[in-house]
Amino acid sequence: MIHNARLLSFRNITDTVLQKEAGHLVPIEAGTDIPFDVKRIYYIYGVDTQTRRGFHSHQKLEQVMICIHGSVKISLKTPVDGEEVFLLDSADQGLYVGPMVWREMFDFSPDAVLLVLASDHYAESDYFRDYATYQQAAYRYFSQEVNKP
Amino acid sequence: MIHNARLLSFRNITDTVLQKEAGHLVPIEAGTDIPFDVKRIYYIYGVDTQTRRGFHSHQKLEQVMICIHGSVKISLKTPVDGEEVFLLDSADQGLYVGPMVWREMFDFSPDAVLLVLASDHYAESDYFRDYATYQQAAYRYFSQEVNKP
Repeated sequence: MIHNARLLSFRNITDTVLQKEAGHLVPIEAGTDIPFDVKRIYYIYGVDTQTRRGFHSHQKLEQVMICIHGSVKISLKTPVDGEEVFLLDSADQGLYVGPMVWREMFDFSPDAVLLVLASDHYAESDYFRDYATYQQAAYRYFSQEVNKP
Repeated sequence: MIHNARLLSFRNITDTVLQKEAGHLVPIEAGTDIPFDVKRIYYIYGVDTQTRRGFHSHQKLEQVMICIHGSVKISLKTPVDGEEVFLLDSADQGLYVGPMVWREMFDFSPDAVLLVLASDHYAESDYFRDYATYQQAAYRYFSQEVNKP
């Protein structure tokens, strides 16, 4: 298990119009279905199957990643937990990723759309983009977390 | 032109990793790229091509609709403006729909995913689901709007 990360399940409502199935609707209430208010949304698509993206951690930002179409794999790691790979292939499943977790995205299906909901606006100062620098800070961060009562 | 509705264009960032194209990223900052904070998100998919959905207006809610994959048509109407149909077929294009606009969604492509960002949590009391009731309220609402200085 990776600290500050977990899978979320959302409701998936099969709507009917005039007794006929009218598709699926997945609702996400900020603060209830996900543990923060949404200040920023982004989505990634048209990624080549061979491409690996991400290669960063955030200091404070919280995110929920949802593969809203197609599929993608997310590798999460911290220096205290090792690595875990999550396959996201369902629109009603989200991956919560909190502070100080290194992430890489890969194996995008050709039709993949990865939706990301974020707890704050874009701020370059919140990123760790160098793994060695991240690793040092993460050791400090998680040893303090663990020591908390 | 429909009152309280307009098309929005988002940035579409073509990312590169190691000098190779690594797909597209569309960022949306709440309060800047769209005129509200996002309290609720939902997405609709798997809708049969023959199905028409929506058939309601909101009293206060603001929304932005984005066809993040595939394509869909949105019919908007008010009793003072008539009807306008918008084709959404691009992930970097959003349709802002404010209060007191009747909406119907149709011509979903088989692979369509319609993402909706909303300014408030779900509240059934904010809906008009009967067109005649909506029409009466909308006449009152827009005549007051027009009379504002």
